[in-house]
Amino acid sequence: MYKISFKNDYSEGAHPRILEILAHSNMEQMDGYGLDPYSLQAMELIRTQTGMPAAPVYILSGGTQTNAIVISHLLRPYQSVMAVNTGHIHMREAGAIEATGHRVTIIPDRDGKVTPEDVAAALQQHPDEHCVQPALVYISFPTETGLVYTREELHRLSDFCRHNKLLLYADGARLGAGLTSPACDITLPEFARLVDAFYIGGTKNGALLGEAVVFSTPDLDTEFRRYIKQHGALLAKGRLLGTQFVGLFERTPENAPDSTLFFRLAKHANKMAAQMTATFNECGIDMLVPPQTNQLFPILSNSMITELEQKFDFFHWETIDSYRSAIRLVTSWATPEEHVEEWNRMFKYLTI
Amino acid sequence: MYKISFKNDYSEGAHPRILEILAHSNMEQMDGYGLDPYSLQAMELIRTQTGMPAAPVYILSGGTQTNAIVISHLLRPYQSVMAVNTGHIHMREAGAIEATGHRVTIIPDRDGKVTPEDVAAALQQHPDEHCVQPALVYISFPTETGLVYTREELHRLSDFCRHNKLLLYADGARLGAGLTSPACDITLPEFARLVDAFYIGGTKNGALLGEAVVFSTPDLDTEFRRYIKQHGALLAKGRLLGTQFVGLFERTPENAPDSTLFFRLAKHANKMAAQMTATFNECGIDMLVPPQTNQLFPILSNSMITELEQKFDFFHWETIDSYRSAIRLVTSWATPEEHVEEWNRMFKYLTI
Amino acid sequence: MYKISFKNDYSEGAHPRILEILAHSNMEQMDGYGLDPYSLQAMELIRTQTGMPAAPVYILSGGTQTNAIVISHLLRPYQSVMAVNTGHIHMREAGAIEATGHRVTIIPDRDGKVTPEDVAAALQQHPDEHCVQPALVYISFPTETGLVYTREELHRLSDFCRHNKLLLYADGARLGAGLTSPACDITLPEFARLVDAFYIGGTKNGALLGEAVVFSTPDLDTEFRRYIKQHGALLAKGRLLGTQFVGLFERTPENAPDSTLFFRLAKHANKMAAQMTATFNECGIDMLVPPQTNQLFPILSNSMITELEQKFDFFHWETIDSYRSAIRLVTSWATPEEHVEEWNRMFKYLTI
Amino acid sequence: MYKISFKNDYSEGAHPRILEILAHSNMEQMDGYGLDPYSLQAMELIRTQTGMPAAPVYILSGGTQTNAIVISHLLRPYQSVMAVNTGHIHMREAGAIEATGHRVTIIPDRDGKVTPEDVAAALQQHPDEHCVQPALVYISFPTETGLVYTREELHRLSDFCRHNKLLLYADGARLGAGLTSPACDITLPEFARLVDAFYIGGTKNGALLGEAVVFSTPDLDTEFRRYIKQHGALLAKGRLLGTQFVGLFERTPENAPDSTLFFRLAKHANKMAAQMTATFNECGIDMLVPPQTNQLFPILSNSMITELEQKFDFFHWETIDSYRSAIRLVTSWATPEEHVEEWNRMFKYLTI
Repeated sequence: MYKISFKNDYSEGAHPRILEILAHSNMEQMDGYGLDPYSLQAMELIRTQTGMPAAPVYILSGGTQTNAIVISHLLRPYQSVMAVNTGHIHMREAGAIEATGHRVTIIPDRDGKVTPEDVAAALQQHPDEHCVQPALVYISFPTETGLVYTREELHRLSDFCRHNKLLLYADGARLGAGLTSPACDITLPEFARLVDAFYIGGTKNGALLGEAVVFSTPDLDTEFRRYIKQHGALLAKGRLLGTQFVGLFERTPENAPDSTLFFRLAKHANKMAAQMTATFNECGIDMLVPPQTNQLFPILSNSMITELEQKFDFFHWETIDSYRSAIRLVTSWATPEEHVEEWNRMFKYLTI
Repeated sequence: MYKISFKNDYSEGAHPRILEILAHSNMEQMDGYGLDPYSLQAMELIRTQTGMPAAPVYILSGGTQTNAIVISHLLRPYQSVMAVNTGHIHMREAGAIEATGHRVTIIPDRDGKVTPEDVAAALQQHPDEHCVQPALVYISFPTETGLVYTREELHRLSDFCRHNKLLLYADGARLGAGLTSPACDITLPEFARLVDAFYIGGTKNGALLGEAVVFSTPDLDTEFRRYIKQHGALLAKGRLLGTQFVGLFERTPENAPDSTLFFRLAKHANKMAAQMTATFNECGIDMLVPPQTNQLFPILSNSMITELEQKFDFFHWETIDSYRSAIRLVTSWATPEEHVEEWNRMFKYLTI
Repeated sequence: MYKISFKNDYSEGAHPRILEILAHSNMEQMDGYGLDPYSLQAMELIRTQTGMPAAPVYILSGGTQTNAIVISHLLRPYQSVMAVNTGHIHMREAGAIEATGHRVTIIPDRDGKVTPEDVAAALQQHPDEHCVQPALVYISFPTETGLVYTREELHRLSDFCRHNKLLLYADGARLGAGLTSPACDITLPEFARLVDAFYIGGTKNGALLGEAVVFSTPDLDTEFRRYIKQHGALLAKGRLLGTQFVGLFERTPENAPDSTLFFRLAKHANKMAAQMTATFNECGIDMLVPPQTNQLFPILSNSMITELEQKFDFFHWETIDSYRSAIRLVTSWATPEEHVEEWNRMFKYLTI
Repeated sequence: MYKISFKNDYSEGAHPRILEILAHSNMEQMDGYGLDPYSLQAMELIRTQTGMPAAPVYILSGGTQTNAIVISHLLRPYQSVMAVNTGHIHMREAGAIEATGHRVTIIPDRDGKVTPEDVAAALQQHPDEHCVQPALVYISFPTETGLVYTREELHRLSDFCRHNKLLLYADGARLGAGLTSPACDITLPEFARLVDAFYIGGTKNGALLGEAVVFSTPDLDTEFRRYIKQHGALLAKGRLLGTQFVGLFERTPENAPDSTLFFRLAKHANKMAAQMTATFNECGIDMLVPPQTNQLFPILSNSMITELEQKFDFFHWETIDSYRSAIRLVTSWATPEEHVEEWNRMFKYLTI
């Protein structure tokens, strides 16, 4: 039987508008390798949206590829990137960073966030040339479990990094969900200025593929196109990547600066999650992680989980004790309100 | 002014049938990372088409990525891959192979083809542990300038490799154009059995992206999915890759085994090139390389080239002497007959 | 003022017997790159001493070099080596393992030892192709703080690894001190059979340089000489390495099987440490780590440490609280009994 | 039967003076990892001898190690090093450069020398980001077949590199033989100023091991000690390396600036070769390469080679025709005059 999936935010294809642009431009003859007009337009739109009119922008295909290429590009061979234990580059990228020759230096995980204090402690543990040299801080915004850094947290971390000559790089696979979270008190342009480089995730926010790398700090992208090519990430039909971000960031009467498709899709995902959260709250369900974006981690009895699995797909996240577990529910740009209503209905039914 | 481009075979998007499948499947919820039904179906179609019912198939995004991942997967760290000087991995991939730690051992180039004699000579030049160990032969089918190996050439090379415990890998970026060339006397299944691994190029034959790797020899793909993931090449929305090859290889009444979209598109490209070749012959034009597939290298006077550039885009390939150059013209699945007619008309006009 | 150093076991040159062999053989003309008669003799002596008559033996220069070369040789690119947090490859080798493309997967540290249970837990955390594949267990014998695994601990770990198709590799930088410890209940041949590969440390046991790698498990050393060469570790004058181990393992009337220079030097280092331990016990000093080999970690008041530093060199190891620290004292093959007596005398004087 | 070997210049151990220093200092307690007084003294002596009072100096163990570490340190990941086909890094180092991720871009070989014209041509063949970026020129001084660049050749190459923002690195495995060749019209300080980095070979000029890297251009050695450590090349007993170069460069009444042991040993090697050359000239023997340093390549009949092999060891270098071959004869600091006389005697006898 067909089940509704809350497993992740990349279960569907692309937002129809993106397919429309793709189809519309299909037979135009264009230059390859990211030099096509759609890619150029996308880069310009991103520069505008991030408030960085001079920033170099590059569009890659996926998150692991992007993280490995950007991080190894920013490091010298003897340097490491610092990340929390739950960081995507440590947990779910099959050693991609190490495959480029660099260590991921693990720092303590506080709800998935990096603090200046923990970075400082890590630096102290690397006193001399018998150690790698930690040189770059990797954060996810939002974190792997969907929490957003506050404005103040980001400012403190950014200041610390600049003071200590560390680079700060943000994995924005779910940047849209982060920035449109009610818990978020920072704008994209402000976010962009606080880090040295980051990427804007397309794949998990309505694109077929595509992550757009922005270098906020000048001169960090020397020969980056060559490096992308060397790592097999320069698509011949770069238009495929360009059209995704034209779709996400184009301005139309409907798409005012703060409501380009990118933001509207992210808001929808968060809104769907909020509707589920409301039900959890109503039913007095504990959450493993405070719900801030499009990922929810309710703690449920194993018997209820079994019941829910009859109709829904989701991940078991963590065993809490012998009769309860936390599950992960992910909503997305594509989640229909009816799916959420179906869940809420069944959930309330089971709770009563 | 808009010009007609004969610069390459990836100037347009995808064949409409592929976009159609993509659009049709767009809102279906599927597993990610290549485990979706379209990817699985594509793999099965490829196994059937190549006559290798048990062969592992993997779909990657682009040629440089595919070459680097497959080649480095097949080699041990102290081993090298042998290729001719004009080989794509040596000339146009920004050192992607070396970035994985392996040397490309250059062997003499005879029209872009590798011969057993040249491989044997290379082996002799690597007598001991002070040298890398050449372990894999890389060929392109067709070659960089569009020539096809004959059945006998391939059999000799394959036999030599097996006798000398060398692996043989074929870059099939333009495999379709090669197999449908009038100069080709080998079928896809026979080709597949002669090499240890190869890839079927989608990008240059009507797909948006996608190269399908086939391991003809058993047990060469141990943990290959993990290796793909580690190299950032496992797309979250693997459906994007799967749909491309479903489109290229699906069987319908129209698409008999030998006339799946893949072959029909390639034949069209070759046919368009042949119509241009006919005009060159008629006009007594010398060709730098015998025309066998969808790339043509006519030797023209510089003044004629300047005239043609008013209306057409193409690459200058090689300076012949102070008043003549060879240019490169590429036709594709998307080349309309009118473009060719336009070229032929203007060319004849200029020649008279 | 000159101080006596207990900083480490590589503060002096080589045992005079080794210099003697070096000088004696100096003007003989020999083949280079480890094919000289001294290297061959050393390998044979090591095979005999380890009870592995057919084992391949290779002599490298230093510990970091040896660990990086052996570990990366044994792993496929997508595989990781497991080690405890305090493991030398993690703490003090500047990211040498990661520079070869491999992650060091950290497992919990229980006095520096690896347990089957912790390895099993690590394996469970790497369920699929989105993770690296842990494939090799790295242990130090003795551990970084000088503890020896018991016979039973090693058997359990070895059995677990074989059962789970994991390789087991032992860093033997201080293998001599480990095997001659009163706490050790295992012989070198038995040790050798329990691991797949290990190295016998020369540098920290009386040689100028040199670590001898032994592959206990057949067929693990395919093309290892080539790999050594590729990593710049094949010394042109291999005799320099060969003579070290001829000196350490040659059999003479004085050097019975169990009292070759290697064992005698290690016993001396342990004996010197034991004489210091006796004084610590007498004075009621707590030790951070139980003293088993040639490294001692007494917990002393900071004022006493300041006094001792007037005459002795040693490392501050760990701050215990605001007025106490653990220091590290290392004895060696070269520690004269008078240095220990001097220490003991001053220590007792300060304690009273 | 024992044969006299002219196979290479690393057949013996070290000059007795070096062993003497090693033995004399043996029981002194010193800091490890190259921070001992002998290493520091050696670095200072080298700075003086090279006329570069502020240049950073590092001492590594062997040539392949040194080349791989220096070259990969100087390059960014997407850059290549240019070398002639016969360059040691291409022919005899088992792919060590590629193992660090970099291509060796081959340029035409003119007697083993690199010319500005050939470098310029290579640059033109790498026009865009689809190619690696050649960034460093590797030369050997003398070349692999013992030829020295003239002062003018070096100046032209150096100027070209600086003008084109290329780094210039010299492999000085046999630097002593080069600088003391009658064909050499350049001094060590002048040589040092023309390149950005180079190494002074100890192994082939009387040391047990050791190559001293000098960075002539400021700021090229950022974190180089860490990088050395990461590549397993920081010997714990760094004194072993330091003492070699103290011996080679110490100043004594006997060792005036131009006649430190380093130069005296090299002159001896060249002188021995010259005495053999005189005989070849006398006998009208053709040389494959003009004799300039301590390597000779006489072209001899195969029957004469067979006769000579009864008493001497040497390498067959190249087959000339069906009855003649070029052999390679190498003299060294350790070649006794009697060995040369023995050769000359037998050679003349066979020629008559």
